[in-house]
Order: sequence, then structure tokens, then C-alpha cells
Amino acid sequence: MQMTDLLAKKRDGGALSTEEIEFMIRGYTRGEIPDYQMSAMCMAILLRGMDERETLDLTMSMMHSGETLDLSPIHGVKADKHSTGGVGDKTSLILCPMVAATGLKIAKMSGRGLGHTGGTIDKLESFSGFSTAISEETFFRNVNDIGIAIMGQTADLVPADKKIYALRDVTGTVPSIPLIVSSIMSKKLASGADVIVLDVKCGDGAFMKTEAQAAELARGLTRIGRLAGRKCAAVITDMDQPLGYAVGNAVEVKEAIAVLRGEEKGDLLELCLTLGACMMVEAGTEWSVEEAKLALMQTIEDGSALAKLAQLVRAQGGDARAVYDTSLLPQAKVTLEVPSEKEGYVNRIHAEKVGLISMHLGGGRATKESSIDLSVGVVLHKKVGDAVQSGESLATIHASSSEKAQEAARMLLECFEFSAEPVTRPAFIKQIIR
Amino acid sequence: MQMTDLLAKKRDGGALSTEEIEFMIRGYTRGEIPDYQMSAMCMAILLRGMDERETLDLTMSMMHSGETLDLSPIHGVKADKHSTGGVGDKTSLILCPMVAATGLKIAKMSGRGLGHTGGTIDKLESFSGFSTAISEETFFRNVNDIGIAIMGQTADLVPADKKIYALRDVTGTVPSIPLIVSSIMSKKLASGADVIVLDVKCGDGAFMKTEAQAAELARGLTRIGRLAGRKCAAVITDMDQPLGYAVGNAVEVKEAIAVLRGEEKGDLLELCLTLGACMMVEAGTEWSVEEAKLALMQTIEDGSALAKLAQLVRAQGGDARAVYDTSLLPQAKVTLEVPSEKEGYVNRIHAEKVGLISMHLGGGRATKESSIDLSVGVVLHKKVGDAVQSGESLATIHASSSEKAQEAARMLLECFEFSAEPVTRPAFIKQIIR
Repeated sequence: MQMTDLLAKKRDGGALSTEEIEFMIRGYTRGEIPDYQMSAMCMAILLRGMDERETLDLTMSMMHSGETLDLSPIHGVKADKHSTGGVGDKTSLILCPMVAATGLKIAKMSGRGLGHTGGTIDKLESFSGFSTAISEETFFRNVNDIGIAIMGQTADLVPADKKIYALRDVTGTVPSIPLIVSSIMSKKLASGADVIVLDVKCGDGAFMKTEAQAAELARGLTRIGRLAGRKCAAVITDMDQPLGYAVGNAVEVKEAIAVLRGEEKGDLLELCLTLGACMMVEAGTEWSVEEAKLALMQTIEDGSALAKLAQLVRAQGGDARAVYDTSLLPQAKVTLEVPSEKEGYVNRIHAEKVGLISMHLGGGRATKESSIDLSVGVVLHKKVGDAVQSGESLATIHASSSEKAQEAARMLLECFEFSAEPVTRPAFIKQIIR
Repeated sequence: MQMTDLLAKKRDGGALSTEEIEFMIRGYTRGEIPDYQMSAMCMAILLRGMDERETLDLTMSMMHSGETLDLSPIHGVKADKHSTGGVGDKTSLILCPMVAATGLKIAKMSGRGLGHTGGTIDKLESFSGFSTAISEETFFRNVNDIGIAIMGQTADLVPADKKIYALRDVTGTVPSIPLIVSSIMSKKLASGADVIVLDVKCGDGAFMKTEAQAAELARGLTRIGRLAGRKCAAVITDMDQPLGYAVGNAVEVKEAIAVLRGEEKGDLLELCLTLGACMMVEAGTEWSVEEAKLALMQTIEDGSALAKLAQLVRAQGGDARAVYDTSLLPQAKVTLEVPSEKEGYVNRIHAEKVGLISMHLGGGRATKESSIDLSVGVVLHKKVGDAVQSGESLATIHASSSEKAQEAARMLLECFEFSAEPVTRPAFIKQIIR
């Protein structure tokens, strides 16, 4: 088999066979197929497409390019979630304890990742002593005992995706549905969960600009997951502003705790309830999304979701007192209010720009070696649709110095767009795709 | 400027600006843009296309990626020819002396190249002592004195094409009209001729399978040449069998001499007259192709074309007596007739396979380091349309040993296809595009 023949086939609009896709992924992962052939193939796939069978084969070949996680030692239905990425996305911190409190099993292997804020692991390290460097034995025992555990990525999951994604990033070949689907689903499948729920963002601030594009991706993701034998659903959500109010690490943990305490409603809670409800319906523990949402609300009302978070933190060596007393979480040296210079109704909050402020304050990681300041970030006080008076605070900046805080405050003013007329925000949850 | 932005633009069907194309070609030639980005770009260009302005910019940027040849020391109109490649193509050996005999100037810089037979330079080395390692001064003086000179490639012409072509060859991105046009025309423009005539082959054995594809390429080539300020024409010719009768080196020189002596008519002469006539009409030395053909026939009838070949050989140190006595050319140790095992009318002669026989006999170069046996090759006795009796000779094999000759004879039998019904060959010259 020759990669040049595969390139000619895809270039001319043909479908690659199962064997050809396996040959290509194996060869590229091993370094036998050079980058310049794989990048041309990615461009050909982007422009010529792949049918469902090819996309499934690509996903499975990538999944099997490295180790896969065997979750069979865990009793019960294992659920997992993936988000296509958003600023202020602390969903996992709320969703996982809530769902675990209903009896589903959460066995999560997470990476740290690069971005405006840390990943779920970084955020959880806001609890003093919390560690994800636990043995596989402890990981499985904890999930069986308390229904939830989070482990740092140790296994060599999907090396093909690491190589291919890095290449796509520099060759203009990111926006291809089959390539996105195989990248996301190969990792989710390798992570071993029975139920996979996907949060697909759409809008200006998201990768998928329109609801139609997001729905196409969501259908591709759930279809491939189902063809691979897993239970799958997707939720399409609007992203015209950060999710919730906080963007950072400890500030996001604080917000997640407020939601679990029932003190904060809004988009963030709505999203967590919807994703969790999809998990329960797919797992078969509830019959309808509406019933499942009520069961999830119950875990907030009776405190069991918050208790589950405390159990998780304690089981992995963290100071669980902070779950009930958030003043024990990392606190920034300086806090600064950002008074509005304009008045009107908030029309839009540029999520990406707010993310950059968090990054700038030290809350994110630019390279793998960067260290994160868990205490810094932005807490918004106004969201789209809110009325704002001139001088009223738009946000609180949490910073390590007043210089950084002032610079962040200046940047924050540029994130807000105002309208003289009242603004009605479009529906946040656009569609559920099952 | 970022290559990733250019990739996204072309991927989405946009047109690259003059500056962007210049940035890309300069960066890739210098090694600042990696192969994996350029190969993705080639695939995007192949699938999205390039408009005429982009193709011209690409051609000019490539042309200026290295040295260009300044032919201004030569008095008169300089003509050059390019063929998209064919088996048994000894056109230059006939065309160049013929055209030079009419007064046009032939200042040719040639490479040796890889292939089934050697290049024009290798073939001319069949004349004992002939050398293309001449100084630029000698080159220009010879062209001015006798109208013709051929020099080995010394200048670093179009390094961008060398890199891009090598990459396209292994990434399935050869068959793209803008990429083919820029590759061919950047080299022809860099070589400095005023008049450029192109022989575009079509058919099963050629790169362009249909006349329509060949015409599209021919229009692209002539249009870009004209936009770059040169005079251009193209001839589309059928390639369902080797050109002429001989495939090899000395055997092709012998055939070329036979044509120049007026002893051989047929396809090969027709092609040389048509290409030469196009050159003369473009150069303005004749008004019509028909008149020009008559003028060229005159150079055969009065012996001036043959004399011009002898002048060329002599001026570059070769034994010109061989022009008049071809027994002085390299002779193979063994010759073997290949009697037909079938009878009927020749329907097709697989040109590519005949080429492989020449290669196999030692007449071609597989790598740059290979040495060529100038004496070996195949001389066909039958061509498409000819009636063949069983036992009649289809060809003579010229080989270095009887084992090789016998193997070649077996391979040759597989090159012929027969029909029980008489075969009418389709028109050889399909179109002239000006």
C-alpha cells in the first residue's frame, strides 16, 4: 500500500477503505508516513469529505493508535462529557458531582491542557492538597466506593490525535467535520465511558459559527459514538458571552460551589442540568430529560451534589472544608472593581477577550511549562440583557498586583458591547441531539 | 504574513494576492515554510484552483526564485520548445537544426533528466567527442555564428520548481493545471527564449487522457507565456504509441538523421514540421503554418537542416562524420528481431511499456548517478494501423547481451495489441492552439 495512492484516491473524491485508513494512521503515528503527506491528506479530506463509514474507521484507527482505558472494574454505568470549548466553562465541576450523586459513575481521566484558564484538574487543585496523581487501583476503588474519581492522564491515549491535531493546527485543516469528529471521539472512546454527552457550542465566540454547522458536527459526533457501541447525546448551546460569571481557576470553583449550593441559577445551571439529564436518559436511569432534570435539581436541594464534591476532594487528599467555606480557596492579592463608562443594555460580552484577560493575569498556561496562578481571574457582574448604569461595576478583577489589575480593567471595558434598547438574549440551549 | 492564513484563504476558495504568492514561494524556496504546509497548499490549489492572475503570479515568483538566463547577447529571435513528455521523443534533434537552418536562433540549456531514455544531451553524446560543457561565451558565440548551441544546465534555474515538483510527486498533487503551468512555464521563461512552442500530448499513454484536458492545459500554458511577454503556441498530439520508430539513444539519433535526410516521413516529421512552423509564425518569419511548413521541408530537401546538425556537432567537439555515416554512432553488441506471434492489424502499442524495455536494456537513468548505455534500445518496424503477418518482425532489439535481448523481446510482444479488422489511426495532430 502506498500513501501516494491513498492521496490520489481521496483527492479524486473516492472513499478510503478500512485497511487504507488503518495503514495511514498506523504509518503516521509510527513516523513512517511523513508530515507533508499527512497534511496534504488532511486538506483533501477537508475539501472532499469522508462518508460515515470512513469517519468511523478513522476514529477507530486513531482510538487504537495507543492505549485505551478499560473501565470494566467499575460497577455500573460510566458517563463522560466533552465540550467543544468555551470561556468560563466550569461545567465538569458541577455536572460530575451532581450526576455521581444520582448513582452514575464518573471515572474521568483529564489532561491539564493549554488555554485561558487551567483545566478541570488545575481548578480542582484550588483545594489545598488535592491530587490527581493517584494509582489506577485507587482510581477504580474510589469510583466504586463514592461514584467519582479524577485522574491525571497517565496512559498514552490516542497518540495519533496529538500528531494529527498539531499538524492540522498549522496547515489550515482544522475546520473539517470528519477530522473534528475523529479527533474528539477517538479520545472519548479510548477513555472507556458507556455514555458520552457532548456540549457543542455555536455562535461568534465558538468554532462553529451557526446553529446549522454545530448541529452537523453534533450529529456526526453522536452518530460515530453510537456506531462504536456507546450511548451518545449532544447539546447545542449558544456562546455569545462567557459561561456563568467567573473566568479563572479558584473563582470558577467558587462559582461551581455556589451553583451546587443552589445559590446561582442561570445559563450555567441550565447547561449542567441539560447535560446531566441527557446522561441519565442515555444511561436509562430516567425516562425523560424533564424527569431527569428534576432528579438532578433534587441533588442540589438535598445537598447531596455538594457532599459528593466534598467526598471527591477528600478522597483525593484535598481540604474538603473549602467546599463549605470558600474563603479557604486561593485568594488574589488584589481585587479591583471595573465601573462601566457607558450605560445601556449589555448586548454582547466578547468571551475570547475575557479569556485573554484571565490568561494575561496568569490564570492560564501558554506553554506546557507555564505555571498557573490559581487565585487570579475575572468575575463578571453583568451579563447579556442586563441593564447597566454608568459607574456601576461590570466585573471584579482578581489579580496578583494592582498594575495587572488596572491593565485587566482597561481590557475588560473593551469586552462589553451596549445597546440603547433592551436586549433579549436568544435561547441559550438551542437543541438536544440524540 | 502567515502561511496558515494563506492556507485558510485558498482552502475556502479565495484568490491569493501577488504579495502572498511571492511570500509563499520565497519562503518555501528558502526553507522557511515547511514541506507540510506547502503540500497542504498544493492540495488546496489542486482542489480549489487558481485564476489566471494567480497562475501568472505563481509562475513569475517561481521563475524569479533563482537565476534567469539573459539571452540578449544573441542577435535575432530565440526560439524554444517544450514537450509534456513521450516515449521515443527525439523531436529536438530534428526540430532544432531545421528551425536554425531557417534563421531562427536556438540557444538551448538542457538537463539530462531521468527516464526511459536519456535526454537530448545524452542522445547528442552519441557523437563521439560531443560536449555540452561549454562556456557561456562559447555558447553565445556559437548561437550567433551558426544559429544553434546546446549547453548543459549550469545556472540555478527555478529552484522553487525543483522543491515543489519533488513534493507534488509524493503528495498526489501533480494533476493540477495551475501547478503544471507554473512548473513548465517558470522554467521556459527563465530560459529566456522569445518564442516558446509547446507539444502537449494526450491519450492513454499521456498525462492528459483526453483532448479536452490537453487543450485546457495548452491554453493555460500559452496564455501565461503571452501574459509574461513571450510569443507562444501549442500543438496537441495523440499519444497511443511511441513517437516515430526508435526508442533509445543512438537509435533515436539515427532515426532523427533519417528524417533530416528526407528518408523517413510519418508522425515524427509531421510533428517537427508543425512545431517548427508554429515557431516561425510566432517569430513572424512566415505568415502561415502552411507556408512555414514548406520552408521547413525545403531545409530537408536542400540538405541545410542536416548540415546544421553537422555544424552543431562539430562546433561542440563532436565527430560530425557520423551525421553522414551513422555506422560511426554507438552500435549495440547484439541485435535481435522480434517475430510476431499473432497476425492482424496493430491497434495499439503501449508506449510506456516500450519505454520500460529501453530502461531495462540500460538506455535510461533510474537515479542521477546511473550511467547510460547509448547503444541499446528498441527500433519498431510496425506502427498502429500496420498489417502484421505471423512471424513478421515487429521490432529490432539493440542490447548488450543476448540474454537481455531475449528478455526484451518477450516484453515487447506484450506491448502490441492487434485487431482482426483494419485499424484507422485517429488524427495525430489534434489541434494547434495559438
